[in-house]
Amino acid sequence: MQNIEIKKPLANNHISVDCVLMGFDGEQLRVLLLRRTGEEDGQAFHDMKLPGSLIYQDEDLDDAARRVLLELTGLKSVKLVQFKAFGSRDRTKNPKDVHWLERAMQARVERIVTIAYWSLLKIDRTLVNNLDRYQAEWVALPEVKDLAFDHNQIISEALSYVRQYVEFNPAALFDLLPRKFTAAQLRKLYERVYGKEIDVRNFHKKILLMDYVVPLDEWEQGVAHRAARYYRFDRVQYNKGRK
Amino acid sequence: MQNIEIKKPLANNHISVDCVLMGFDGEQLRVLLLRRTGEEDGQAFHDMKLPGSLIYQDEDLDDAARRVLLELTGLKSVKLVQFKAFGSRDRTKNPKDVHWLERAMQARVERIVTIAYWSLLKIDRTLVNNLDRYQAEWVALPEVKDLAFDHNQIISEALSYVRQYVEFNPAALFDLLPRKFTAAQLRKLYERVYGKEIDVRNFHKKILLMDYVVPLDEWEQGVAHRAARYYRFDRVQYNKGRK
Repeated sequence: MQNIEIKKPLANNHISVDCVLMGFDGEQLRVLLLRRTGEEDGQAFHDMKLPGSLIYQDEDLDDAARRVLLELTGLKSVKLVQFKAFGSRDRTKNPKDVHWLERAMQARVERIVTIAYWSLLKIDRTLVNNLDRYQAEWVALPEVKDLAFDHNQIISEALSYVRQYVEFNPAALFDLLPRKFTAAQLRKLYERVYGKEIDVRNFHKKILLMDYVVPLDEWEQGVAHRAARYYRFDRVQYNKGRK
Repeated sequence: MQNIEIKKPLANNHISVDCVLMGFDGEQLRVLLLRRTGEEDGQAFHDMKLPGSLIYQDEDLDDAARRVLLELTGLKSVKLVQFKAFGSRDRTKNPKDVHWLERAMQARVERIVTIAYWSLLKIDRTLVNNLDRYQAEWVALPEVKDLAFDHNQIISEALSYVRQYVEFNPAALFDLLPRKFTAAQLRKLYERVYGKEIDVRNFHKKILLMDYVVPLDEWEQGVAHRAARYYRFDRVQYNKGRK
């Protein structure tokens, strides 16, 4: 540091946290978004954003992420993984975002560095009953529109961190599925996470190799197509294989 | 955000970047540290810190990391991987660190969120000729003393990110070795990264399974013990196996 010469104004930033919560509805990955209403040039606008907010001066990052998530969605005990800091000065290039935030925060805002977290969770959690109260919505990834700030980019990067994570920790994927699931559901989930189609036959072979995916003596009921077998995730077997 | 009520002062932080550069000397992992000299309570002190500094207002995070590394170590074209933001308010609990920084930066400093990067690189790079000029030193991990701020913690967390990374991308480890290396050197490197001893025989079996570690018809020269065979890393073969 002795050798660094200060040539320009130092960044003095607000810090925020943003949470990318992803779930799976059996067909699509969905991300939890909040509705945002603002006014710009005398016109009301409505769009969406990730659950997130500025942090307090006396607050650590992980604590802030937990607090903000609770305040904005009512969700507790969510396992959040910090994955990246987004700090481009372009994050606040849209005056609409800055004005909206300054009004919400009652503070002047210039640059904001946000620390982003991801979590995978079942969509059937408490939140679903409270979606309206929290102005929240589980939006399928292909239907996500232009979001506030750089939140589209944050979601897209979160997905690539999730992909890396489940490569090591496939158990995380089973947190997204119901207790009993079909091979087709599991395959669809893999397809969504990896962003590519997976051959059905190859995938069945792959399942046979996963000794922690256990076939049940139960089949789908009342479906028009051939009833598919149910499987369950065997965590004990999974943990054995990890030692 | 609409529903968030601001109950406390918002954090308005300086942002810094810190770089954990790791190399391998054949025996130990080493981290590049800078010597720091300060004065506290009328007493001079000498300790060490990671290469890092506050970022400028108009600078993106990755650009700042590259700039700071160049200014502090002369190193260019280092592949830096952002791995974590450290934002605990305890980072600046030691007045010694704050006073030192305020003097160096000519600015009042309260809380600092730092964005940390890691890189693995050969110790034989340009820097070695310039260590003195930059007040820099490659310190073996077991010999790292109490560093400035939370830099000990940052190094320790960097190592666990590196461990995860090389699990997926073992090629990164070979960047740390000379072009020709012995099995013992490779084993020692694995031991250091994973922080545990590895059985010699098992490791030889493991090498046989790595088709990208190719035995050469060359042996060590002029050693007291039995001359060990040299190996090289075959990147073409490695990339084939990754498809």
